[in-house]
Amino acid sequence: MSLVHQMPIEIGFKHCDPAGIVFYPRYAEMLNDTVEHWINHGLKIGFNNLYTNRNVAIPTVNLQVDFRMPSKPGEVITSNLSVKHMGRSSMKLQVNFCGPDGTVRVEALLTVVFASFDAIRAVEIPEDLRALIQPYMASES
Amino acid sequence: MSLVHQMPIEIGFKHCDPAGIVFYPRYAEMLNDTVEHWINHGLKIGFNNLYTNRNVAIPTVNLQVDFRMPSKPGEVITSNLSVKHMGRSSMKLQVNFCGPDGTVRVEALLTVVFASFDAIRAVEIPEDLRALIQPYMASES
Amino acid sequence: MSLVHQMPIEIGFKHCDPAGIVFYPRYAEMLNDTVEHWINHGLKIGFNNLYTNRNVAIPTVNLQVDFRMPSKPGEVITSNLSVKHMGRSSMKLQVNFCGPDGTVRVEALLTVVFASFDAIRAVEIPEDLRALIQPYMASES
Amino acid sequence: MSLVHQMPIEIGFKHCDPAGIVFYPRYAEMLNDTVEHWINHGLKIGFNNLYTNRNVAIPTVNLQVDFRMPSKPGEVITSNLSVKHMGRSSMKLQVNFCGPDGTVRVEALLTVVFASFDAIRAVEIPEDLRALIQPYMASES
Repeated sequence: MSLVHQMPIEIGFKHCDPAGIVFYPRYAEMLNDTVEHWINHGLKIGFNNLYTNRNVAIPTVNLQVDFRMPSKPGEVITSNLSVKHMGRSSMKLQVNFCGPDGTVRVEALLTVVFASFDAIRAVEIPEDLRALIQPYMASES
Repeated sequence: MSLVHQMPIEIGFKHCDPAGIVFYPRYAEMLNDTVEHWINHGLKIGFNNLYTNRNVAIPTVNLQVDFRMPSKPGEVITSNLSVKHMGRSSMKLQVNFCGPDGTVRVEALLTVVFASFDAIRAVEIPEDLRALIQPYMASES
Repeated sequence: MSLVHQMPIEIGFKHCDPAGIVFYPRYAEMLNDTVEHWINHGLKIGFNNLYTNRNVAIPTVNLQVDFRMPSKPGEVITSNLSVKHMGRSSMKLQVNFCGPDGTVRVEALLTVVFASFDAIRAVEIPEDLRALIQPYMASES
Repeated sequence: MSLVHQMPIEIGFKHCDPAGIVFYPRYAEMLNDTVEHWINHGLKIGFNNLYTNRNVAIPTVNLQVDFRMPSKPGEVITSNLSVKHMGRSSMKLQVNFCGPDGTVRVEALLTVVFASFDAIRAVEIPEDLRALIQPYMASES
């Protein structure tokens, strides 16, 4: 069984637009937050520690998002992160935002690259991180 | 020749993260701004007029973005919008953010749907809008 | 003893600018989040319920903020809200953001007004809300 | 006659909340944008040049804002910046956001400090900047 990292998000006024539903750029911010939350609380390596002390950044190079159903203020949605693929210096992350009933509202696939923080140049995924990421690899059935 | 709608964006402190480059969720916001700017200043129909007086909203249902090169504070990039496809109630928009030298830094494809603003239900693209959008249809060579 | 509503905030990449510290407009967003969190989880009346079902909005009409010390990614700061004054249709809220050691990093005073959501016109603070707010009134020593 | 730096802002969907008016933390962002725009296009010294090449940052240490009237999508408001006071290492900036008819909708007073970008420590306002800022000093009548 592979691990899925979960993070709850309480939809607030700040997320929503005049239509009363989440403004889609806010979902991009939540995607960033989910990856950061996973690194901090799932992998437990400290996102800021990565770039401050190890000179490793993880820029997103590709993003694919399917917005299926709107979310509204007061709802608590859950962000679910799993790893679809891990290469030499990049990985594909799937992040689904689900409603209180478990229905997928937003489905996203992010490709992130490991890079030096100062020069934004690709580097190999460090071995210790690779070992921590492994359990989140979704079995490709 | 098809039209391309252009909007300049001056990269500021607010767009950038501790790495000193544009934080990717800010690009999602710029995508939204580009579509709104096109409707206001290209199609000249007034985005707020659309949903306030005509009950028409244009939610984004799919987003695909390729982040190729970073942008930095002080740079002026240009957002270029063209229409790749127009269906019965949806359209595909290509938006490229280009650097001062014309190089594509971010390439995005958005699928937007015409919907009633109050019920968020798909509606046909109104005929008058269809006529205004037509000149922006990129020739699919 | 008066109540103080507390909300933890994990400082992330999204909050910070190229100087590596929290970008001040993000604090304004956190102020909004604190008030909303207090209404949802302190007063337990549901912020969205207020404007959706009771036509009551609580716009901020004045804001005074003292930024004393910067905050950085990875830190968990605490937002502390208390009520300094409650009038006929307005109240003054003090919100302090404190570092892990309890030092006040940002001190804010917000004046909010109770208003009809549809017309943005001042209304009296409803009696049931007044009773719920009362315990958060700081004793003016 | 003292100079006033002006910047137009087209209110868009992104600025507004479910009440259909500008969400107040967005005004804080616009305040930041105004100061940056003034430095770039009024003083013409390049905001990013300041901290990149001269190690000078200008953090905001105090903010006082009066929100008088709401703004709505589609409106073009004007931000007006003038200097109320210039001290040894700090200055007070007044920024008013005015509606199309010139009415002040938001009135803000910012205190900013000149500081070293790397250490966030106060420094004297450089002489060349002081000379450029001088014409924006409002006469204190």
